[in-house]
Amino acid sequence: MLPSRLRRLVSLFSRLPGVGEKTAQRYVLHLLTMDPQVAKDIGEELTQLAETVAPCARCGNLAEVVTPGEEVLCSICSDSQRDGAVLCVVARVHDLLAIERAGSMRGRYFVLGKLLSPLEGIGPDDLPMPRLRRLIASENVREVIVATPPSVDGEATALFLKRELEPAGVALSRIASGVPHGGDLEFADPITMGRALAGRQKL
Amino acid sequence: MLPSRLRRLVSLFSRLPGVGEKTAQRYVLHLLTMDPQVAKDIGEELTQLAETVAPCARCGNLAEVVTPGEEVLCSICSDSQRDGAVLCVVARVHDLLAIERAGSMRGRYFVLGKLLSPLEGIGPDDLPMPRLRRLIASENVREVIVATPPSVDGEATALFLKRELEPAGVALSRIASGVPHGGDLEFADPITMGRALAGRQKL
Repeated sequence: MLPSRLRRLVSLFSRLPGVGEKTAQRYVLHLLTMDPQVAKDIGEELTQLAETVAPCARCGNLAEVVTPGEEVLCSICSDSQRDGAVLCVVARVHDLLAIERAGSMRGRYFVLGKLLSPLEGIGPDDLPMPRLRRLIASENVREVIVATPPSVDGEATALFLKRELEPAGVALSRIASGVPHGGDLEFADPITMGRALAGRQKL
Repeated sequence: MLPSRLRRLVSLFSRLPGVGEKTAQRYVLHLLTMDPQVAKDIGEELTQLAETVAPCARCGNLAEVVTPGEEVLCSICSDSQRDGAVLCVVARVHDLLAIERAGSMRGRYFVLGKLLSPLEGIGPDDLPMPRLRRLIASENVREVIVATPPSVDGEATALFLKRELEPAGVALSRIASGVPHGGDLEFADPITMGRALAGRQKL
């Protein structure tokens, strides 16, 4: 029933994470009927996206492009107040932002871009290990905090990083997994509860 | 922590219905890191939206623009198989599409664009009544089905339409409100249950 151009737009929107056909249609109709200016603005920003934002040449975080074609450093890598001896390895930019929100990480980051995943056919060669090893050596990193998610792929990647980076002589740590703050013990799943117990700390 | 261009894009995306800052950020990061081509495509479609899609000159449904600047008719209004004697009045294009999905409406539509809402300051003068009255007269409409939603504003608008259109001598009806198909009586709210009882039909 929708014009074909709109059907195409709906199917594009339904590529967004967690967005199905119905939600996509709701977004498109909203933009069309309620917020035509927002539609135009989003459209312009999205078409220019590739020219204005690029991955940080050092860590893979998102950075603003100043001169097109030139390498860029993100705001964290170019911040001299950061402790270069501590490197936090994350899977995705999303995770980096979540850690930054906590506000307690004073070191820098390294974004892997993906996790080891036999199911998705992602093996050790798909991870940017040479770049990570070079960075650790050239910047005198002393501690690597592995902040991959507490999932099967995240744990596998953490173990792989441990094996790969141990010869470099850096201190390796893994973020804690347990019952979340404000969470009710009653509703914690058995795996989380098992981890909370196994990871108990001296009082 | 995000580059300013991305922050702007996140705040634009969070204007979509039901999308908060966190979801908007997830969409933007997904487009940037996973689907740059989709980002470009959505961007181009959205910038061209105003030139390619316009409201149908007759009913207000969305229609494809053929020649820019010229009036357009939607696929329903230009379908000669439709019964011009039955007119279904809806609040939004979303509602029209939902009714079309049911597949049992053989007449045409009229999209009000809004509902009476004292809270939002929308009064009778904000509804396109002259256009609706002209259409009913010129197209020999015999039945008007009022399909505004079963909300306070939707009911108020339905009563207003009844009062306004009764002098035109058309049959007026209102879509039924009751327990939805597949719904469990146990979980129906009291108002829905009250309507289901009041609207009971002879077996």
